[in-house]
Amino acid sequence: MSSSYLISPIIAGVVGLVIAAILYFRVKAQPAGNETMNRIAGYVREGSMAFLVREYKVLAAYCLIVGVALYFALSPVASFWFLIGAFLSLLAGFCGMKAATYANVRTTQAAATSTKGNALLVALDGGAVMGLTVAGLGLVGLGVLFYVYTGHTDVGTVLHSFAVGASSVALFARIGGGIYTKAADVGADIAGKVVENIPEDDPRNPGVIADNVGDNVGDVAGMGADIYESMVAAIVSAMAIALTIEEANLPAVTTAADPVAARAMAVGLPLVLSALGMVISIIVIFAARALKNSKPATVLRSSLMLPPVILTLVSYIVMPLIGASQNVTWALAAGAFGGALIGLITEYYTAMKPIRLVAEAAKTGAGTGVIRGLAVGMESVAIPTLIVVIAAYIADRMLGLYGIALSAVGMLAGTAVVMTVDAYGPIADNAGGISEMSGLDPKVREITDELDAVGNTTAAIGKGFAIGSAILTVVALFSAFNMEINHVRVANGLAKMSLDLTSSGVLMGILLGSILPFLVGATTMTSVGRAAGKIVEEIARQFREIPGLLQGKAEPQPAKIVDIATSAALIEMILPGIIAIVAPVIVGFVMGPQALAGLLAGGLAVGAAMSLFMANAGGAWDNAKKFIEKGGLPGHKKGSDAHKAAVIGDTVGDPFKDTSGPGIAILIKVMSVVSLLIAQLIALK
Amino acid sequence: MSSSYLISPIIAGVVGLVIAAILYFRVKAQPAGNETMNRIAGYVREGSMAFLVREYKVLAAYCLIVGVALYFALSPVASFWFLIGAFLSLLAGFCGMKAATYANVRTTQAAATSTKGNALLVALDGGAVMGLTVAGLGLVGLGVLFYVYTGHTDVGTVLHSFAVGASSVALFARIGGGIYTKAADVGADIAGKVVENIPEDDPRNPGVIADNVGDNVGDVAGMGADIYESMVAAIVSAMAIALTIEEANLPAVTTAADPVAARAMAVGLPLVLSALGMVISIIVIFAARALKNSKPATVLRSSLMLPPVILTLVSYIVMPLIGASQNVTWALAAGAFGGALIGLITEYYTAMKPIRLVAEAAKTGAGTGVIRGLAVGMESVAIPTLIVVIAAYIADRMLGLYGIALSAVGMLAGTAVVMTVDAYGPIADNAGGISEMSGLDPKVREITDELDAVGNTTAAIGKGFAIGSAILTVVALFSAFNMEINHVRVANGLAKMSLDLTSSGVLMGILLGSILPFLVGATTMTSVGRAAGKIVEEIARQFREIPGLLQGKAEPQPAKIVDIATSAALIEMILPGIIAIVAPVIVGFVMGPQALAGLLAGGLAVGAAMSLFMANAGGAWDNAKKFIEKGGLPGHKKGSDAHKAAVIGDTVGDPFKDTSGPGIAILIKVMSVVSLLIAQLIALK
Repeated sequence: MSSSYLISPIIAGVVGLVIAAILYFRVKAQPAGNETMNRIAGYVREGSMAFLVREYKVLAAYCLIVGVALYFALSPVASFWFLIGAFLSLLAGFCGMKAATYANVRTTQAAATSTKGNALLVALDGGAVMGLTVAGLGLVGLGVLFYVYTGHTDVGTVLHSFAVGASSVALFARIGGGIYTKAADVGADIAGKVVENIPEDDPRNPGVIADNVGDNVGDVAGMGADIYESMVAAIVSAMAIALTIEEANLPAVTTAADPVAARAMAVGLPLVLSALGMVISIIVIFAARALKNSKPATVLRSSLMLPPVILTLVSYIVMPLIGASQNVTWALAAGAFGGALIGLITEYYTAMKPIRLVAEAAKTGAGTGVIRGLAVGMESVAIPTLIVVIAAYIADRMLGLYGIALSAVGMLAGTAVVMTVDAYGPIADNAGGISEMSGLDPKVREITDELDAVGNTTAAIGKGFAIGSAILTVVALFSAFNMEINHVRVANGLAKMSLDLTSSGVLMGILLGSILPFLVGATTMTSVGRAAGKIVEEIARQFREIPGLLQGKAEPQPAKIVDIATSAALIEMILPGIIAIVAPVIVGFVMGPQALAGLLAGGLAVGAAMSLFMANAGGAWDNAKKFIEKGGLPGHKKGSDAHKAAVIGDTVGDPFKDTSGPGIAILIKVMSVVSLLIAQLIALK
Repeated sequence: MSSSYLISPIIAGVVGLVIAAILYFRVKAQPAGNETMNRIAGYVREGSMAFLVREYKVLAAYCLIVGVALYFALSPVASFWFLIGAFLSLLAGFCGMKAATYANVRTTQAAATSTKGNALLVALDGGAVMGLTVAGLGLVGLGVLFYVYTGHTDVGTVLHSFAVGASSVALFARIGGGIYTKAADVGADIAGKVVENIPEDDPRNPGVIADNVGDNVGDVAGMGADIYESMVAAIVSAMAIALTIEEANLPAVTTAADPVAARAMAVGLPLVLSALGMVISIIVIFAARALKNSKPATVLRSSLMLPPVILTLVSYIVMPLIGASQNVTWALAAGAFGGALIGLITEYYTAMKPIRLVAEAAKTGAGTGVIRGLAVGMESVAIPTLIVVIAAYIADRMLGLYGIALSAVGMLAGTAVVMTVDAYGPIADNAGGISEMSGLDPKVREITDELDAVGNTTAAIGKGFAIGSAILTVVALFSAFNMEINHVRVANGLAKMSLDLTSSGVLMGILLGSILPFLVGATTMTSVGRAAGKIVEEIARQFREIPGLLQGKAEPQPAKIVDIATSAALIEMILPGIIAIVAPVIVGFVMGPQALAGLLAGGLAVGAAMSLFMANAGGAWDNAKKFIEKGGLPGHKKGSDAHKAAVIGDTVGDPFKDTSGPGIAILIKVMSVVSLLIAQLIALK
């Protein structure tokens, strides 16, 4: 394999990071508005950073423990690359959030003093810092790792360790961020709207700053870590499968006749294709910047839909040139188009006819509205799952299990774009909050509201993407796990492991696996409720004890709320995090690899469906409420009984879509990655 | 095998049916109260029977179509026994409901003129008619079938056909009844309490009769068909496994040295053990009658806990006498005690600390109350699933897959008792409604309320039992399906089917299987909402157009509501019913037996968890509301904001616990039974 092939992922990653740095300083150089705006934005930035710093301390302790365990259980290099994988995840979250918390107030200022197009640009640039950092760090990390270890016997272990570092940090960041953002959101809403009857984002409400902080720690840092880990896991699973694939299957991948060269190409291909995805993403991001004066919805939606098309075309041209089979292109395309389709389906369920039905149902009360939203969420499981099945089927026909993993790589090739558009959402949302809290002209809020509305839709699409890619990645990881087990068994002269569904170990594993998503769902839902309760209490206390607060004559104490939310989120993230990491280890070591495979399969089936159900039901309730607020139901405007009923649905939906749903998706990824890492330790049981 | 062995199930079944008949006439001979009571009870009885007659017409058409299909696809005898299986299910529902609709008003009268103990007795006798009929018809049907076909080559096909008849009728009865009962309940509640602000069971509300009808068609006829089918499916799966089990495994079952005799004993044993369960159930029912003056809760709870103990003791004594291994006793006991434990766990989640937490959460609003209830439901999945896994593990260690099926038989050995206690609930509930509507002394209502409260708890236990046994039965059916496929393949000189989890067919099947429970959940939830909406409209119309109705000076028109609920339920039950029956047929014939096995495994994992989640969340909301009504939250009594929030949770919980949850449980049973039937047709694909 030529060294240009080996070095291309590193170059693509570095280019991405450099562009991210340029955009970061560009954003920071924009005017940041008046003193009030700066003060409020400062609160949000400080609160976000304070959360991150405290979260990182907890994660540092976790990394230390696991790092030491890996040092002794596997090897010093395993420990080292685990730490690198984890560190890069933390770094991506840090950079992205820093950019987002500068971009929010600058978006407000651009909306106040310049054009809507320029405001869009600032928010988009802020998001792009996150998007390019996430994909860039993933590529650079894995690229360097592979450059150093290519052909080395340790390469498998090192790859798995890197992935476990990325995954487990993402797990905590996603769940901790998810609990924070929804506890603050629900808490501020209940206390503000219900208890004191003041509008959303009202500066008198001490919980509003925490709510805005939550958008950053949940939807920027948490989401970033999540997508970073999906990308890493997809690449690693494809590389791991290529490392252990039978020689007879290699000719389907490449025309190289020498089996060693053929395998080297198969192992490197996922990284090279991701590098290609990065280049395409950069082009799409700049195309979107050029289109800043078009309708925001068009700009963002086409950004999400373009990468699959370009990727397929380029791959079709490039694969023959580098001696790879066109099968690679079709597997890649199956995943890439599958991801885009899942995004569109998600948009249908969370923004079109179904939300009108939820709004209609809210006319007869909160009960019927909640029932209808649950039904929409349940229905929404079918088509995305079917799409994953079809994509996996096509990829499997092309290249077997390796093809399935490549299709996951294809789905995540546009990571930088997806993450850009995703991080755009909370920036626009924050911009609106800052404009409201700073008492700017309502016209400013109108502009930011339009940007925010688009962000909501793209957030739904992005969430669909994230969950869809998680499911496909888990299928790939699952295959990699089984191949690793059999690889070790065959090397030790044992028969391959039978994973027959009729074996009681497998069947019990499946049933046990079905429990875990529900447990993580239960704990995260409860956590949000509990943390929100603490916030409501503190807000009520401030309104009670700070004279003149309700009249707008005194300042609230937002830092206390931020502190409460931070502490609560950090404590509450531990239990679900431990479940995800410890369950596969216990089942693997106690019950053996068959039961562990069953656990993964059961977790996959239940977790995929549950995360789609919860994310989409939440999205449907959220948008049904907004639909009523925009006058979608004649005779039932904001403040009517139907609207109040819809608000209750939205409250239920908050932890559904932003805490538990994504938490379950990452649960099944982490379980699979951890299993892949311990595979060699339990293979002979 | 001696003929006494063969004839014992028939005798036990007939004895059960004779006692049921005696109790039926005993109940009917009780005093039925004054003219008003009789008129109201008449409405309920007529409405219930009208539903059943119309439902049976739809089911007759279904049976005709499937019967003809089986006649040609399999054989005339398959068609015949399919019809018998279906007919007995219908008959059980008819007899049980007839008894329940006589017992309700007589319970009210006994509460009014005699002791609480006598009122309990009438309700219990009414329930026992259903319990003994369900178990008796199952035993007689399967007993006669086996007497005729023992040793015949057709016995497998005939058994499967009988089970499909029982299952598919149960499916429609359960889903149709579930939609009816909750549409009427939710509709009457919303219209009555919310729109017109009148209390529950108020005679002015035209929907109250339909609500009471719903208790009968859902919780008596629907539940009866459901449990009848579980019992039949458990016995059939055990017999089917025994028919195809490898000879080498027979010595673990019996000491008989001749393999033909040994297999005959293994095939007959599930029926004989069920006959033993029937005898024990009759004893327990009579013991409960004798204890009528004890606390109702004690009487009912010990009725549910006694059968496992007696069954294990008797089996331990009897097995050596008939030449069976003690392994049988342990497999049986694992299931029987597992079922009882699941019942207790269900009671914990729906009646103890968790409901207090839900009630507490309702203090900050409906949103937080709903969130907490969902979390309780999700958490409640873990332990029952673990219990099933442990029971299956023990049984598997004892007797392999045959043991797992026997443990399901053990769990369902107490069917007559479980169903008696279950049917008791709606009778007591109806008794309260009739007392309210007839304007009797509040003291009468107090007695019926106490009986009803116990009924609620036992209903929760019964539901846990039903779902737990469904899960274990599906595991057994799944094993029987795989054995049947391999039996046919080996007979045709083919290799056994590989159900390896890494095969893409299996994995795709698992993902497809995960969709179905969510689809059935979505359609049934939507159905209830839609049907309830129609009922609310009609009630509003009556209040609007009938002068003097609200003032109590004019009569409502309950028959119209009954008619609307009936039509809606019958139409709405078709789609989920078809999904359950058609999905395995399509996947089996188009994608082959591997994908179908995956479909069943994925459906099992997701369906088991979803049905537990939905049933228990619903139970928790229901009882949290009642907890507040009884003054459980100081300062938040009936009518307070916390109570209103809890009522919203209860509204969401209604279709959760009585329509979708049980519907999903029966979905996975029906899919498995249908797969077992078509196994021989697709085995060679």
